[in-house]
Formats: sequence, structure tokens, C-alpha cells
Amino acid sequence: MALIVHKYGGTSMGSTERIANVAKRVAKWARAGHRMVVVPSAMSGETNRLLGLAKELAPGKLTPDYYRELDMLASTGEQVSVGLLSIALQAQGMPAVSYAGWQVPIRTSNAYTKARIDSIDDQRVRADLDAGKVVIITGFQGVDDEGHITTLGRGGSDTSAVAVAAALGADECMIYTDVDGVYTTDPRVVPEARRMARISFEEMLEMASLGSKVLQIRSVEFAGKYKVPLRVLSSFTPWDIDLIEEAQSGTLITFEENEQMEQAIVSGIAFNRDEAKISVLGVPDKPGIAYQILGAVADANVEVDVIIQNVSKDGKTDFSFTVHHNDYAKTVDLLKDKVVPQLGAAEVVGDPRICKVSIVGIGMRSHVGVASKMFRVLSEEGINIQMISTSEIKTSVVIDEKYMELAVRALHRAFDLDQPAAAA
Amino acid sequence: MALIVHKYGGTSMGSTERIANVAKRVAKWARAGHRMVVVPSAMSGETNRLLGLAKELAPGKLTPDYYRELDMLASTGEQVSVGLLSIALQAQGMPAVSYAGWQVPIRTSNAYTKARIDSIDDQRVRADLDAGKVVIITGFQGVDDEGHITTLGRGGSDTSAVAVAAALGADECMIYTDVDGVYTTDPRVVPEARRMARISFEEMLEMASLGSKVLQIRSVEFAGKYKVPLRVLSSFTPWDIDLIEEAQSGTLITFEENEQMEQAIVSGIAFNRDEAKISVLGVPDKPGIAYQILGAVADANVEVDVIIQNVSKDGKTDFSFTVHHNDYAKTVDLLKDKVVPQLGAAEVVGDPRICKVSIVGIGMRSHVGVASKMFRVLSEEGINIQMISTSEIKTSVVIDEKYMELAVRALHRAFDLDQPAAAA
Repeated sequence: MALIVHKYGGTSMGSTERIANVAKRVAKWARAGHRMVVVPSAMSGETNRLLGLAKELAPGKLTPDYYRELDMLASTGEQVSVGLLSIALQAQGMPAVSYAGWQVPIRTSNAYTKARIDSIDDQRVRADLDAGKVVIITGFQGVDDEGHITTLGRGGSDTSAVAVAAALGADECMIYTDVDGVYTTDPRVVPEARRMARISFEEMLEMASLGSKVLQIRSVEFAGKYKVPLRVLSSFTPWDIDLIEEAQSGTLITFEENEQMEQAIVSGIAFNRDEAKISVLGVPDKPGIAYQILGAVADANVEVDVIIQNVSKDGKTDFSFTVHHNDYAKTVDLLKDKVVPQLGAAEVVGDPRICKVSIVGIGMRSHVGVASKMFRVLSEEGINIQMISTSEIKTSVVIDEKYMELAVRALHRAFDLDQPAAAA
Repeated sequence: MALIVHKYGGTSMGSTERIANVAKRVAKWARAGHRMVVVPSAMSGETNRLLGLAKELAPGKLTPDYYRELDMLASTGEQVSVGLLSIALQAQGMPAVSYAGWQVPIRTSNAYTKARIDSIDDQRVRADLDAGKVVIITGFQGVDDEGHITTLGRGGSDTSAVAVAAALGADECMIYTDVDGVYTTDPRVVPEARRMARISFEEMLEMASLGSKVLQIRSVEFAGKYKVPLRVLSSFTPWDIDLIEEAQSGTLITFEENEQMEQAIVSGIAFNRDEAKISVLGVPDKPGIAYQILGAVADANVEVDVIIQNVSKDGKTDFSFTVHHNDYAKTVDLLKDKVVPQLGAAEVVGDPRICKVSIVGIGMRSHVGVASKMFRVLSEEGINIQMISTSEIKTSVVIDEKYMELAVRALHRAFDLDQPAAAA
């Protein structure tokens, strides 16, 4: 008998028929003796519908007062979901009670539309679980210290589910989604990609931040911080699938590093097309240039990913970094107008047609030569590496966008990711 | 500079275009220097849509746990409205803030789907008004002592608006609706019906309870109890109508009995087709029969309106009353199965094809002969009176349904209601 948190996305909650199926699945788990907490998203399309209405009324409004009202508005989507799911469970003869974030309460910061969870009171939820009820809690939202409704930003329901699981010390947080797990890489690019039965938090973090969009990255961070075992699994399996089979399906994201995980040197290949490369060339090499360049960029609220500064030559150096596509033009303009004249640099060049490909694996910690194998594979395919960035468990390269598929497939094969793992 | 509460119905909030118009109207009042509180209903159709989803999931559920979830669900409709209206006001450059019932808080009983307001905390609202903001509060809902969301039942937003006005000591509560005021009778039946510029609370109560569906009756009771001046006016006038003209339009429901009101003997004619008549015949006339009959009816949760017991003859009497159409069959069965055998009465007869027509007027208090004039008028039209019931300011008769229009028109004419009032 375990305490389990289920999270269902908007597609799973998309119609009364689907909600009834979610209720049947949850009831199956409850009848098997588990204490169940469920965090559903808004019905698919609902959040966009609500925000669309707001946009019609106030195009281009960007004040805190406006964001407060957006949260007031958007939070209703999940409230509808929890009410309906509770009703559906009751119709199955399963006692259930729903709560909005403020009723739990889930306390957050007051940063409307992108609040962070500060604390969760588990008292009320525990009392209901003790009374044999399934407890259903709105995802995506909470309440600030002054009683204003806040939301956590897109995908925030994943974070809500993990935070609730952490607060309750749940045995597992099961995220039902439209994919059946985490793959070694995107199966649309590499048909041989395999679903991983397990992956470590560190690896999942790298995979998530590098563009594998299975889970919201904050939810993974949260799970890692509070050591909540997290499982990603398909919401498309029939609700009456055998419970043991369901409990072992998908991908378990775990903080336990077992032997098997040590064996895999590279667990997956991540890639990201959303970045653009910018270089400031001929920068006089003196202390503080990184700050002068990136400080200006940060002041403009542009996030920087890969950063490279090479050794200088003739007292000049080149400084390169990547930003999101959407920030490319703005950043280049900023550098040309302000930074280059100030620094006395030669020029700014950039390229939005790049991509980042990364190999991720906890085994890289203890195995040398993994990065060099990556570089060799790319070289054999005639792919020029433009930038390199490494961390303890990943190596990323920036290459021409047109080679992306080629690079991912070659690396997937070279690191034996298309072979079944030794043990599953 | 006054404190004014505006209430807008679902039709007025039915689209973003209409919400923008509501915002412009409210902003006009605020710019004229008034402190504004607005209580909007859910967008038209939204509450029915939400309850329809619940019904699909749990047809026929009727437990308190189910009603709790219905309130969780249905309350979102108004929350969407307040968020959107606040956004629309901000887009007009008017500072605004929205609150759900629980945020104010509006405290209610825990009777889900038909809760009653216990108290309203005015602190938060006053602070926002002091800060120059328009405050927008969800109608129809509140929160019970344990933090569960409750709703007040259909039409509850009227009651919310009046309760908020009472708590704030508002100068006037203006109910914007799809009619432009209270009429001497239904203009669809009597084209000569006139809008009343003023009506007393007592009269309005009788008119409302007798089937003039302009306002929810509880809102009128509330307004009378807390002496909140209430104005019913049209939401279809252009938003930029002159403010003074708007402030004097519609019908003011007032607790001040001025001279002019004393002059009108009969203010209006109300009627109701929703009732059915039931008679228990040949009841042995002994103490306690009224209780034996109506006690059983009340135990079955059937509300009784007009009640008549005539003098007995040969130790037997006939006992008649009216109930809502929907309760007719159930009540007749109940009486036949249980009450008639117990009482030793002769039989139960009934007629669902009746209607109730009432003359209402505060002037009836001090004028004799008003009721007999009513009976004479009906007699001259050849209309048989089946039951009579009177109160201090109204006289009701039950007649055959087919004579309803005839009776209403004749009475409207006979009491000079088609003539303009002496002063408007």
C-alpha cells in the first residue's frame, strides 16, 4: 500500500469521456489499496481559450495588475478539471474531494504567471486520505501570502504534481502523458530510438534542458531536490491494463544510481534547433570583457546558453555564445549599437541556422574518451564542429543545422543506443 | 461622490465585445468620481455548460459530496467574468482588481448549491476603493467556514450584489438587466403596461414572489432588510448615455415611502401560471387537520403557497392549497396513499390548469374596498374565482388558467395602471 500521485495532462482530460477513463484508472489504483492524490491539467484548449479572451480585451497589456488577472482567469481551467474528475470518481462509487491550490494551500511567490512554490500544507490532504478519499488538486496554481491566485507558467502542472508528491512523501509521482516514456533520442529523427526503463535525475535534467520536451524542467529539478521518484508513462494505455504492468511501464526517473545505470556510458542524445550563434570578433583581450558583453545581454533579459572564449592572438580574442532564436536579432542589434563601440571590438557576426547536439550519460563521469569519440564520429561524417561545451555528464556541440539528423543518427548508432540494454 | 454597486447579468457579459462595453460604462461612472464595485454574472451559457459536463459524468447523483463539486465547478464561471472585466477596465486605463468570493471573503452557510450569505468582510474592498481601484467581485458564490466554495443558487448574483452593497453601505445597488425596469404588469400580456419609476420594497417583494421575474426574491429581501436602495435598469442602453439620465432610469426599489407612493392604491398586477390546485374533500372537521395534511406535504419537501379552509358543514370541511406544477402529481399521490386514509377524508381532487392573479399596492393598507373592486371586475368579465388569499398589501385570486390574460388586462385597466402616474 503506497501513496501515489498521478498527474494527467490536458489531452487526457480533454472530454467527459476521457475524464471518465481517468477516473476509472485512478479508482483501479485506489481499490488496489493505494492512497491516491491526482493532479490534473485543464481540459485541452481551455487555457488557450481563456488567455485568448484576455488578449481580445487587452492586446499588449504587460503590467503586474494585468498578470494578476490572467492568473485569476487561467486558474479556472484546472478548477473545472478537478471538479469534474471528482464527480467522475464519485460516479464510480469512489469517495473523492477536489481542492483548488489556495484551499490546500499551495503557497507560492507572488510572481504572477510564473510563480514558484514555497510550501505546501499537507494537513487537509492527509485527513482526506485517512478518510479513504481520493484527493484531487489543481495543477498549475497556488496562492501568494496575500491571498492572490498565482499560476506557475506553462507546464506548471508537472511541477505541482511533483511538489505535492514531495510534500506528502509520496512513494512515486506518475506523470501520464502522450508519450510512453523517455527515449534515447527523438524517435521521429532516429526510428531505432529506444525507450529507457530508468534514467537518473541528472541525465533527465540534461535531456530536458536540452530540448527533450517530455517534462517541464522545473518539475525534474523539484523531483531531484526532494528525491521524488518520478515515472513518465502513457495515458493512452487502456485504463483496465493490469496494475503491476502499468506500474512498471514508462520511464522511471530515479535518484538511486544502481549498477545497471553505471554501465551505460551514454544514455541519450538530445538536440535543440532553437538556438542561434553570435560572435563578437577582434575583442581587445583585457580583464572584464566577458562581463561587458554578457552583462549587457543579461540586462536585456536574454538568456545565454553555450559560451566560448578562445585564447587570444595578437592581443585580440573572439567571444561566442548562443541565445534563443527569438532573441537573435535583438541581441545582435544591442551588441552592434552599444557593446562593440565601447569595447573597441572589430565586428559582430552570427548565424541562426545552427543546432546543438548533446550526448548525455551519468557514466561519462568515470569514463574518459567519451567526448573524443563523439568528435571522431562527427568528423567521420564530415560535420564541422563550431562550438563545444561540456559538463560532468554531457558534451554538447554546435553544428550547422542541416547536419542535425545525420549527427544524431550517427551518434545514436556509435554509442550503441539502438541495442537493447543489458538488463531492462 | 457616491459608492455604487453595479451588477451585470450573463447576457451583458456574453462576449468580449459586451464585456468591453460594460467596462466602458463602469469607467464612465468611476471617472465621474464614484467609488465603484461591480458584481458580474458568468458569461451567458457558461454555468449551464459546466453543469452539463457534470451531468454527463454523473447523471442522477444527489449527495452532498457531489453538490460540493458542482459548486467548485460552477463558481469558475463568475471567476472568469471578474478576471475578464478587470482586464477590460485596465485596458480602458482604469485601475481595477478582481476577487473571488473566498478572497473577500463572502462567508456563507455550507449548504452547497443553495448557500446563504452570513457575512462579508469589507476591509480588502475598502482598501482598494481608497486606492482608486474599481473592485470586481464574483457573484453567486462564497466560502464556508471550512474553506469550501459554495454557490447561492440560480440568480444568486443579484443577492451577492445587494449583500456587497449592504456590507459597504453603498448609496445604490444598480442591477443592469435585460428589461428596463419593473412594470405595472407583464407588457407581453398587457401592451399598455407602464414602467414604474419607483416601487416600495414590500410591493417589489410581492411582485417578485408572485412571478415577476425581474429580480431574484432573496436579493429583494436582502435589500429590504439592510435598506439598500436598489435600481433595476437596462443593460442595453449605450454605455455612453448621459450619466445623470442613466442614474434616473429604470425602477428604483426604495424603503422610503414618500407621498407619491401613498397615492397609488394598486401599483401592479402580478400573475403566476406555475401553480396547481389540490383539494382534500370531506375532511372530518376536528383540530389538527391542517397540520396532518400540510405536515405530510412539507415532509416531502413540497412548498405550499395559497392555503384555504372553509367553514365546515355537517361536520365535514374541504381543505385546498396550491403547489408548484412540478410537485403536483407527487403531492396528489402522497395524499391519496397516506393522508386520506388516515384522515378518513372523502377524496382528493386537483387541477393543474389554474393561475394566480394578484393586485399589489402599498396603498391597499389604508384604502378599503380594493379587494371587492377586484372581485367585481372579475365578476363583470364572467371569471369565476376559485380561491382567494390576501395580505396587507396584496390580494390574490386563483382562477382558470384560460382567463389569465383577460383578468390581468381587465384589472390593469380598472385600477388605472395604464394611465401615467401623477408624478414620475
